[in-house]
Amino acid sequence: MTNRISILGTGLLGTSVGLALRAAGYKGSIVGWNRSPQQAHLALSMGAIDSIAADPIEAARAADVTVLAVPIYATIDFMEKLAGVLGPDQLVTDVGSTKRLITETATRLYNQPDRAAFLPGHPMAGKERGGASLADANLFRGAMWLFTLKGTGFSPYEKPQEAKGALAPEGISATAMKLMREWRDWVTKIGAKTLDLDPARHDELVAWVSHLPQFTATALSALLEEEVGDAPELKDVGGRALREMTRLGASPFSMWRDIAMTNTEAVERALLALEQRLAHLRENLRTPALREEFEQANKFRAE
Amino acid sequence: MTNRISILGTGLLGTSVGLALRAAGYKGSIVGWNRSPQQAHLALSMGAIDSIAADPIEAARAADVTVLAVPIYATIDFMEKLAGVLGPDQLVTDVGSTKRLITETATRLYNQPDRAAFLPGHPMAGKERGGASLADANLFRGAMWLFTLKGTGFSPYEKPQEAKGALAPEGISATAMKLMREWRDWVTKIGAKTLDLDPARHDELVAWVSHLPQFTATALSALLEEEVGDAPELKDVGGRALREMTRLGASPFSMWRDIAMTNTEAVERALLALEQRLAHLRENLRTPALREEFEQANKFRAE
Repeated sequence: MTNRISILGTGLLGTSVGLALRAAGYKGSIVGWNRSPQQAHLALSMGAIDSIAADPIEAARAADVTVLAVPIYATIDFMEKLAGVLGPDQLVTDVGSTKRLITETATRLYNQPDRAAFLPGHPMAGKERGGASLADANLFRGAMWLFTLKGTGFSPYEKPQEAKGALAPEGISATAMKLMREWRDWVTKIGAKTLDLDPARHDELVAWVSHLPQFTATALSALLEEEVGDAPELKDVGGRALREMTRLGASPFSMWRDIAMTNTEAVERALLALEQRLAHLRENLRTPALREEFEQANKFRAE
Repeated sequence: MTNRISILGTGLLGTSVGLALRAAGYKGSIVGWNRSPQQAHLALSMGAIDSIAADPIEAARAADVTVLAVPIYATIDFMEKLAGVLGPDQLVTDVGSTKRLITETATRLYNQPDRAAFLPGHPMAGKERGGASLADANLFRGAMWLFTLKGTGFSPYEKPQEAKGALAPEGISATAMKLMREWRDWVTKIGAKTLDLDPARHDELVAWVSHLPQFTATALSALLEEEVGDAPELKDVGGRALREMTRLGASPFSMWRDIAMTNTEAVERALLALEQRLAHLRENLRTPALREEFEQANKFRAE
């Protein structure tokens, strides 16, 4: 069924998807497009795509499955442009880090009679720096790949096993439904574990387990740059622990801006909770409550 | 000169020191002691020590160099017990994570005529879990090993190269001074880089680059245990970034209690600064100030 895939955005994720599909045995064509042609040429030279599209809309029009691998607002732009030109037997999916806005847009513009299908997706994989040059066929191995298609009739994250028997939402053609199942199969074949979540719950959850760690690393790195940044040898003093806690400090604003804009309230709640937790710890450095904090933290890391 | 070493405390650090000394070609004897005999037996079976001492005081009395590798208050206890029984041609050193209290105690009880010499040390190496079983001859490779002996006449951290020509503080015998130089050489041979700091500056610096990252990881882990700890599959959602940012959450209270108690003010300042930085970021999730935070953080991670 899936013989022609287009990947719009051949940065770290898009290029890794291409490489992973090839490594997993996908035999069809993969056409790629990137705003910066240099990244598209790199993806081509790495074997992640077979050809470079001059026009992303035409590439999607000719594909069975289109993978949007661009920042969130660029994803929304593509969704709007593609909705009118694709047919009901075509599938669009994405890799965006927040899912409420994208899933709402999918409900509004896709997944209805005579429209293409849209499967909102989010692989929990990445690196602190982007770009095709860092792409890796094994990037998704062992990672979760979240889906947030509404109206599929399966229970949200609490019972992931039920997702297997998920039904198609109404308005999706039998062909598109097949493409959707095949895409989920490819995701599994490239090494990821799928999990279906309600989009609002998705955004709340990733605010805790992904966005909070990122913004914490950013704040910590920015603070340390101010405090010890002028003496490079002092960064060495911190050793592995410091390097690990600030690695995400290298993450680019260009990617995180859209996340901050589209998940503001949940991230605000998570940040405020951490501020309060740090204040509690600070006020109890010499009291038995410090032991409780360590024991609670130890529990999170217990295998 | 250094023919007999005693290691009091054969946990992760003490056992790693023994293994590293052997790997670097140290041919003399190493006697070990641990409060829990099981850890001492493990260190013996791993080859980190040649024999187990029944009495730590006797072991130190018979040694040229004694390495205290126990938590900070236990280090102070040993310093008090050993000061009266050791002679001026013996050296004691330690691996404690805060240095003001230990260096003050050294000035009070050691480094004076007829007393043993004491060289306060701090290897910036460790693991999130302790114990001899995790010991590693390469633990110190590439790590900084800080020293904070007062009155040596060399400039503090700003000019580490001057430390090489450091003079002995008055009151240290020529023999003890030789042992001190040899110990610094062994530290270099086991792969660490030495750096001399004023003890107060040491404690302030490690509050930023070591204690703040640890307490941040503890607070983040404790918070996440509360928020998502009841659903183990959700921890997987976070992936590598979450694992890295919470790895230190496994660190034991038993070690960090003494650090919190002996560096309270500096850690309080660092925690408060991070709380304010997180609040600033939270209040600017949708403003251009977010870009500035990311750019400042990127600088810290720039190579």
